[in-house]
Amino acid sequence: MRALKYDSNGLLTGVAQNAESGEVLMVAMMNAEAVALTLETGQAHFWSRSRGKLWLKGETSGNILDVQEVRVDCDGDALLLRVRPRGPACHTGNRTCFFSALEEDHAE
Amino acid sequence: MRALKYDSNGLLTGVAQNAESGEVLMVAMMNAEAVALTLETGQAHFWSRSRGKLWLKGETSGNILDVQEVRVDCDGDALLLRVRPRGPACHTGNRTCFFSALEEDHAE
Repeated sequence: MRALKYDSNGLLTGVAQNAESGEVLMVAMMNAEAVALTLETGQAHFWSRSRGKLWLKGETSGNILDVQEVRVDCDGDALLLRVRPRGPACHTGNRTCFFSALEEDHAE
Repeated sequence: MRALKYDSNGLLTGVAQNAESGEVLMVAMMNAEAVALTLETGQAHFWSRSRGKLWLKGETSGNILDVQEVRVDCDGDALLLRVRPRGPACHTGNRTCFFSALEEDHAE
């Protein structure tokens, strides 16, 4: 129905959400290969800009995100991965990467 | 606590989530001014790449996103806006921009 729209670097935004609790776990970029592998394997894959490589989330930690559903937004440049996490989603050991409140004096 | 990390275009990713239901509503980019205005006004502001301008979500439709809390991720390049929407978040009239399931044959 809806074509995916990758940016000039071949990337779109992926948002992983715990399908059961609704908690937003992480945001990372995906290229076409990451999208295809996520759909094929049912495990969330991303593109690491800092490392310049494809990345199976949890490949070293074991904290795989098993994907139950993938949703796409109205303009096709963001995907919502509804997942069941096998462990903490954040490399810090926190359940979510969004464990900090933004305080106003740190926003600028 | 955590400095925000804007990309080479001065942007980071904003994810708006209904604070009550947990539904993910939309993903859009934010520049420093959008972040500052969001915090100052309590209404979600974004940066429109296609229009090249700052954008108060709902400025024409009235479907403002009132922001209850802003959270930042572990590497400082994504914000989670926990909001109370005044109406449908999507310009299509849908409650969320993620109203479509991605089907495997449309992903490539």
